[in-house]
Amino acid sequence: MAKANQRLTKRAYQARAQALRASLVELQVELKSVPFKVLFIVAGPEGAGRGSLLNTLAEWLDPRGVETFSYHAPSEEEQQHPQQWRFWRSLPGIGRIGLYAGSWYTETLREEARSKRALSLVAQEADRIRDFEKLLADGGTLIVKVWLHLSKDAQGRRLRTLRADPATTWRVTDEDWHHHRIYDRLDQTAKFIRSRTNRPGARWTIIDAEEERTRDLQVGQLLLTEFRKQKIRVARLLARTKGRKPGPSLRPTGLRRLQSLSLDQDLSEKDYDALREKWLGRLNQAVRAALAEKRAIVFVFEGWDAAGKGGAIRRLTSAIDPRDYRVIPVAKPTAEEKHAHYLWRFWRDIPRDGRMAVFDRSWYGRVLVERVEGFCRPDEWRRAYAEIKDFEHQLTEHGAIVLKYWLHVSHAEQLRRFREREALAHKRHKMNDEDWRNRRQRAAYEVAVGDMLALTDRDQAPWHLVPADNKRFARLEVLRSASRQIEAALGD
Amino acid sequence: MAKANQRLTKRAYQARAQALRASLVELQVELKSVPFKVLFIVAGPEGAGRGSLLNTLAEWLDPRGVETFSYHAPSEEEQQHPQQWRFWRSLPGIGRIGLYAGSWYTETLREEARSKRALSLVAQEADRIRDFEKLLADGGTLIVKVWLHLSKDAQGRRLRTLRADPATTWRVTDEDWHHHRIYDRLDQTAKFIRSRTNRPGARWTIIDAEEERTRDLQVGQLLLTEFRKQKIRVARLLARTKGRKPGPSLRPTGLRRLQSLSLDQDLSEKDYDALREKWLGRLNQAVRAALAEKRAIVFVFEGWDAAGKGGAIRRLTSAIDPRDYRVIPVAKPTAEEKHAHYLWRFWRDIPRDGRMAVFDRSWYGRVLVERVEGFCRPDEWRRAYAEIKDFEHQLTEHGAIVLKYWLHVSHAEQLRRFREREALAHKRHKMNDEDWRNRRQRAAYEVAVGDMLALTDRDQAPWHLVPADNKRFARLEVLRSASRQIEAALGD
Repeated sequence: MAKANQRLTKRAYQARAQALRASLVELQVELKSVPFKVLFIVAGPEGAGRGSLLNTLAEWLDPRGVETFSYHAPSEEEQQHPQQWRFWRSLPGIGRIGLYAGSWYTETLREEARSKRALSLVAQEADRIRDFEKLLADGGTLIVKVWLHLSKDAQGRRLRTLRADPATTWRVTDEDWHHHRIYDRLDQTAKFIRSRTNRPGARWTIIDAEEERTRDLQVGQLLLTEFRKQKIRVARLLARTKGRKPGPSLRPTGLRRLQSLSLDQDLSEKDYDALREKWLGRLNQAVRAALAEKRAIVFVFEGWDAAGKGGAIRRLTSAIDPRDYRVIPVAKPTAEEKHAHYLWRFWRDIPRDGRMAVFDRSWYGRVLVERVEGFCRPDEWRRAYAEIKDFEHQLTEHGAIVLKYWLHVSHAEQLRRFREREALAHKRHKMNDEDWRNRRQRAAYEVAVGDMLALTDRDQAPWHLVPADNKRFARLEVLRSASRQIEAALGD
Repeated sequence: MAKANQRLTKRAYQARAQALRASLVELQVELKSVPFKVLFIVAGPEGAGRGSLLNTLAEWLDPRGVETFSYHAPSEEEQQHPQQWRFWRSLPGIGRIGLYAGSWYTETLREEARSKRALSLVAQEADRIRDFEKLLADGGTLIVKVWLHLSKDAQGRRLRTLRADPATTWRVTDEDWHHHRIYDRLDQTAKFIRSRTNRPGARWTIIDAEEERTRDLQVGQLLLTEFRKQKIRVARLLARTKGRKPGPSLRPTGLRRLQSLSLDQDLSEKDYDALREKWLGRLNQAVRAALAEKRAIVFVFEGWDAAGKGGAIRRLTSAIDPRDYRVIPVAKPTAEEKHAHYLWRFWRDIPRDGRMAVFDRSWYGRVLVERVEGFCRPDEWRRAYAEIKDFEHQLTEHGAIVLKYWLHVSHAEQLRRFREREALAHKRHKMNDEDWRNRRQRAAYEVAVGDMLALTDRDQAPWHLVPADNKRFARLEVLRSASRQIEAALGD
């Protein structure tokens, strides 16, 4: 622990604070040109001065580059999403410093103060936090965590002094005294949580909080040091070749599954018309039942260019009340999105309980186009399989039904459709050079698709491979398998 | 009403649809270069085919440029904001077409179907919608509203046909039959709402919905025509000189109020220290009482450069639990924000019931910097006074307490502070050329500030003029007046 042995005079403090301020503001200017985010989390017992420390930091920093966050008990809307949704919602913008007076830690400790929980439950929550922070840190975010240490005696003294003065007595609440009485238990729990969440990229620093001036200077200095280290780290990462080598298959079973799919299905228009209404009806029932049970439904559509994703989605949604679903077309990321974690924009669109979202392309772009085209580094797309599995696990754990489709067309049928599109005025906009470029990379994409199928297929969020050379068959197949998966999820 | 007299053959329909599709897609490409938004609202009785029409449009348009919206009964979070918050939250991005299957209209009519309301209530709601649409239309948004007309007989036939076929019987709900039974009353109400909301910039077009193909073609054609007209309108607006003439005072009383403010207050450090804790305590009590009563609190800080807004805000917030408030520093708008309505980014940050937000600069930029620097047209900033009053009225009507501060420093004191800032390393970042440029325009800004004071001062959202040549006095004055206004709002 950093110890504050001597009291600083006001003059000495001011001199050091001024130097620190100048450096911190320089840091903020640099932060605009170096693409990373900073989360600065302050935790500690009541009376340790989280609020006053953040006020000092807010004074030292340029307020235009700072966002402050804190959390209340989850709102209804937040409760109707997976637990982490609220944290994803409140991340600082790019080039900004997020100051967290409250955070996932304060929430956990407040909960503990209300009622003692089994250690295994606390451990579970801590591990979840650790995974979340790992994800952000791996994505290049700097996470600085400070624990303000204040002994039980010092806490008592501070609360009594505040209470004694009529002008400040309002600062001390009943909750503060309660926390003081159970100081030892809270301290033990905090120690336990810190040890489980003290990982590379998200380390805890314990700062003695008894001396206010020393505390503030030490924290400012810490922020500065960590920022400088991160700058070097980020620069080194950026210098790594992204390379255009998508690499060989990681798990060839997926590729074999893809290549063995038979594509010679046939379905007459007449048969299709009859079956379609039947399955639309069944899907409608299944979806309504799921939404009535407050389950969320998440559809993911991936597939080759011109495989017919749009058409399949329109047939699917024609069975659903327009107020119940949203289609989310996933285009290239905007500038803002490009600087955020790749999962961020998808978290934003995750439906709440009792609603449905259809993603027309999705987070799988990370392991498909970004892998094949080298838009991200190999360590990034390799990590993504586990990150995506964890993301989808959070959805299904919360109760969402996740349905994933890969629409598969043969190389020959794709060519026929490309040519048809180019011939038709109203379809020409769907074609561009990129489509032809992607087509030439079919082999590399097949490897990527295969790995995706092998590495992200879970019982709770399975991949449906849909033979799509025959559009009618493909559309019907989507209706059929969606009805069945939703019914199974409801336990029918 | 556009009449559909003859049935179209499938072949004729397809030929016309293809031509329309090609034009619509061209339109979407243009929309990316012309900066306006499109809201396309489809309303009409059950069975008129809102869903299938939107499905057709979704097929015709490039999905990457489309966003679809619809509304449920307001969520808890939505209920805890002024009524319009949910509509502001769901506007299409720039260059995108927003398709509204549900809209403020469907919500109003569903409500009416559940229970007949007094006409005056419906009228009030319609007027609110009209004002909202006027605001958007004035801001350059194209609003196309289609009412799908279906007679009671045709509705009955359609519902019976669907019900008779086992494959489609699921499409007809009890709610549909209820709407059918009260067709006449709903039709009357809809007519009434349409007539009150049929205004320039947001006109209704009634389309006969009996013939599906004709209906779709007519709607597509309408969208195309309206888009082309709007393109010309927007180009004409853009060509208008913005001009750098902020103009003379509209209402000189405000300017006189500003100039007669005395600035020679004094307050010793000792007196300040004593009084500060007292008033911080009182403010803390008042804020806690207000938040406990689920009132939202909105602080607005405006003032000359270097008037001490940041310092005043930090003193103010030091009295508040960090979890209860957010400070929102208002910088230059981002590219995305620049293309949105100027009020949009502020709506986003309006606190929910029981929370507090402190705006460090605000929507008043429209009538201050944008007026003086010519960043918007004279018709735009002139309109803004009424728009802002209406915006703040919505906040206070919902129960929010709105506190507005103008921090006033003399020209001489400002100069002293500028020079001091330039001399100090840790304050230098606060100064730039713009500050000196603004300073030279003092007279023009004074006129704008005066008009702002005179034209947006309301009993429910009053302006506090704070003499700020003495920083201590100014900070204390903010604490005092805020405590008093909040106490008064609570009826203490």
